[in-house]
Amino acid sequence: MRLGCVRCGSAYPPDFKMFKCPRCGGLLDVVYDELEWSPRGRGVWRYEGMLPLKRREAVTIMEGGTPLVESTKYPNAYIKFEGANPTGSFKDRGMTVGVSVALKAGARAVIVASTGNTASSMSAYASRGRMAPIIVVPKGKIARGKLFQSFLHGAHVIEIDGYFDEALRLVMEHGVEAAYPLNSFNPWRLEGQKTIAFEIYEEVGCPDNVVVPVGNGGNIAAIWKGFKELAQLGLCRGTPRMIGVQAEGAAPLARAWELGVEEPLWVDDPNTVATAIRIGRPVNWPKTLRAVRESGGAFVTVSDGEILKAQAEMAQREGIGAEPAGAAAYAALRKVRLGGTTVAVVTGHALKDPDIVDIRTHYVDSADKFLRLLSTIIPGT
Amino acid sequence: MRLGCVRCGSAYPPDFKMFKCPRCGGLLDVVYDELEWSPRGRGVWRYEGMLPLKRREAVTIMEGGTPLVESTKYPNAYIKFEGANPTGSFKDRGMTVGVSVALKAGARAVIVASTGNTASSMSAYASRGRMAPIIVVPKGKIARGKLFQSFLHGAHVIEIDGYFDEALRLVMEHGVEAAYPLNSFNPWRLEGQKTIAFEIYEEVGCPDNVVVPVGNGGNIAAIWKGFKELAQLGLCRGTPRMIGVQAEGAAPLARAWELGVEEPLWVDDPNTVATAIRIGRPVNWPKTLRAVRESGGAFVTVSDGEILKAQAEMAQREGIGAEPAGAAAYAALRKVRLGGTTVAVVTGHALKDPDIVDIRTHYVDSADKFLRLLSTIIPGT
Repeated sequence: MRLGCVRCGSAYPPDFKMFKCPRCGGLLDVVYDELEWSPRGRGVWRYEGMLPLKRREAVTIMEGGTPLVESTKYPNAYIKFEGANPTGSFKDRGMTVGVSVALKAGARAVIVASTGNTASSMSAYASRGRMAPIIVVPKGKIARGKLFQSFLHGAHVIEIDGYFDEALRLVMEHGVEAAYPLNSFNPWRLEGQKTIAFEIYEEVGCPDNVVVPVGNGGNIAAIWKGFKELAQLGLCRGTPRMIGVQAEGAAPLARAWELGVEEPLWVDDPNTVATAIRIGRPVNWPKTLRAVRESGGAFVTVSDGEILKAQAEMAQREGIGAEPAGAAAYAALRKVRLGGTTVAVVTGHALKDPDIVDIRTHYVDSADKFLRLLSTIIPGT
Repeated sequence: MRLGCVRCGSAYPPDFKMFKCPRCGGLLDVVYDELEWSPRGRGVWRYEGMLPLKRREAVTIMEGGTPLVESTKYPNAYIKFEGANPTGSFKDRGMTVGVSVALKAGARAVIVASTGNTASSMSAYASRGRMAPIIVVPKGKIARGKLFQSFLHGAHVIEIDGYFDEALRLVMEHGVEAAYPLNSFNPWRLEGQKTIAFEIYEEVGCPDNVVVPVGNGGNIAAIWKGFKELAQLGLCRGTPRMIGVQAEGAAPLARAWELGVEEPLWVDDPNTVATAIRIGRPVNWPKTLRAVRESGGAFVTVSDGEILKAQAEMAQREGIGAEPAGAAAYAALRKVRLGGTTVAVVTGHALKDPDIVDIRTHYVDSADKFLRLLSTIIPGT
C-alpha cells in the first residue's frame, strides 16, 4: 500500500497523517499493491480485502449495505439509496474508515469544517471511537437545526467569524496538530466511499452509467476508483460512465466541462436548495475531472426547480425520500438519456432537510364530508 | 395459511380484508400451514418462505437488513437499529407486506389514522404501489413538521375535530369501504415486522433477551411471533424473554403487569417525550401481554429524563442517533440486568424528532483562542 500524488505522480509509503503531496501539494490517492476480493459479512467492512485496515480495527456502526431500488419510472434505472445509512448519508462509509484511521494514528480528537452531513457523520463515529468530535462553522450563517445531529453525537461546535473557507483554513493551519482532520481531502476517508461501487456490482454487475451529485467531488471519484479496482481484478469487463450532477447555481465543474476548460470555474457565491452540494470551490476537483474524463462520462446541471420536482417525484413514484442534493441525481435521469443500465446515487435522506415542503391539508367536520372527500381523492368509489 | 382469532380461537381462510374476528371481535393472527426457511437476497423479502406473499408481488423499497451493532457500553448487548430503514423506522417492514396485500386485494387507496412513523411509511409504500395514501389526523394537535414526510410522499392529509381515537373511529366506520386500512390492528402488516427476529437470529443466533419499546404493542408481538416460528422450525432451541418498555407517562401495560392485572390500565392523557409510544389505549394489547407472558419476559418503565439521557448516551457511546421512543429501549438496558445476550430494538431515527436537543456552541475570534479552546477540549495537547 502507498500514497500516490494525483498531480505529480510521486509515491509515498502509507502515512495516516499525510493529506497532500509533500512535493507539489497535490491530492493523494491510496494505491494498493494487492487487492483481495473476498466479500464476507455486511456493509462497508464486507470488502475488508479492498480497504486499508482490517475489520477488527474498525470503528463501525454497520454502515453501508444500503438499498438498491429498481425505478418504477425509468427503465433499466436503479436508485442506490444512501439515506438508509446510520446517520442518513453516504458520509458514514467514509467515516468508518477515516475515523478508524484516526484512532490507529493515535488521535484523541477529530476535526472537520462542516455544517452538514460530514459533521453529523464524523461526530457519530468519533464519539463511538472515544475521540472528541470538533466541528468548526461560520458564525451566524447556519440554522441551529442543522447542528442538531452533530450536537446529539457530542460534537464540540466552534463558531468563527467569516465564511466556510476561513473555517477550513483554521482547521488546516492550526487544528491538525491537536485533532485529526477528516474533510474530504483526506484520502483514507474516500476509501470507504468506494464500497458503493462494490455493492452495486454485487447486485447488478457493472452498470453502464452511474449518476452522482457533485459538491466537493470526492464521492464520484471514490466510486470511480471502486469500479476501476473491480476492473483491475477482472471482475468488471467494462467500467461505467460517471455522470456528475451539479446544481445550476453551484456548478464550477459542470461549467468548466461545458467550455472544455481543464480547471474549475470557481463560484464565489454558490446558491442552491441542495445545501449538501452548495460548493463553489470543490476541494477534490482534480480527482473529479479525472473520474469523469477517464470513464467517458459527462457533467449535467439541474435547476433548483428541477431538483424540487425530482424530490417530490422520487418520493411519490419510487417511495424514496431524499434530501435535495440526493434528488439532483434523480433529476438528472430525466436529462441524460443514456443507453444501458443506470444507477443514480441518492446521497442523503429527506429528513436531513425537512423544511422544503409546503404542507396542505383538508378539513372535514362530518362523516358525510369525509366520504365526499374520499370520493374525490379516489374517483369511482 | 389461515387467520386465527387471538381471543376465541376461531380460524378463518386467509382474507386480506378481515381485520377482526367476525365471531368475537378479537384480534387476528396469520397462521401458516407450512413455513419455509430459505433466506435469499436482502431485507424483509429475504424471508419469502415465512411471509404471506411472494417476493414478486411485493411493493418494496428494500427495507430491512438494518445494522445490528455491538454495544460499547453494555457487555453482551446489541442494538438493532431500525432507524436505518428507508423512511427511518421499523414501520417499513410492516408496510412492505401490508401495502403489497392492499395492492393484491385490489385497493386503490390506503388509509391510516396516524401522524407519525406509520403515516410516513404508509405514504411512501402506497405511493410506490400507485395507490393513494390518505392519513386522518386530529386538527390543531400536530406540529406541521411532523407531517413533512407523509406529505412529501404524496399523502392526502385529512384533519378532523377531536382526538386520535375519533380519527381512528372515522377510518374504521367510514373509510374501509373506500380505502385499505393499515393501522396496527392489521394482521398482515405485522407479518413484515417479525423479520426483525429473523435478522437477529442470522447474526447472533437466538438471544436471551429482546427489549422492545411498546406503544400499540404490535411490534413486540410480531418479533415474538418471529422467534416462535424459528423455534417451531427447530432453528432456535430456546426463545428469548421479551422485555416491553413503556414511558412512565404512557404505561397502560407496564402498570397492569406490575399489579398482576390481566387487562391494560387505560391512560386517558398519555404524556411522554417519546411521541412514537405516547399511546394510552394500545390496540394490540392482548397480543402484547401474551408475548411477554409466554416468553417469560417482563415490562419496564422509563422516565422522560431517563429516555433523554439514554438518547444522548447512545448517540455518544454507540454512535447511534435514535428518536426518543427508540432510546427508551437503550434506557431499559441500564434498568434490566438480565443474564445472557440482549438485543435492544431501537425503533426509529433521531432525525424523526429533531427538536429535543438544546444546542450550545463556542465562539473564537483568533487562532490563539482557537488553540486554547482545543486544549481544553482535548486535555494534554
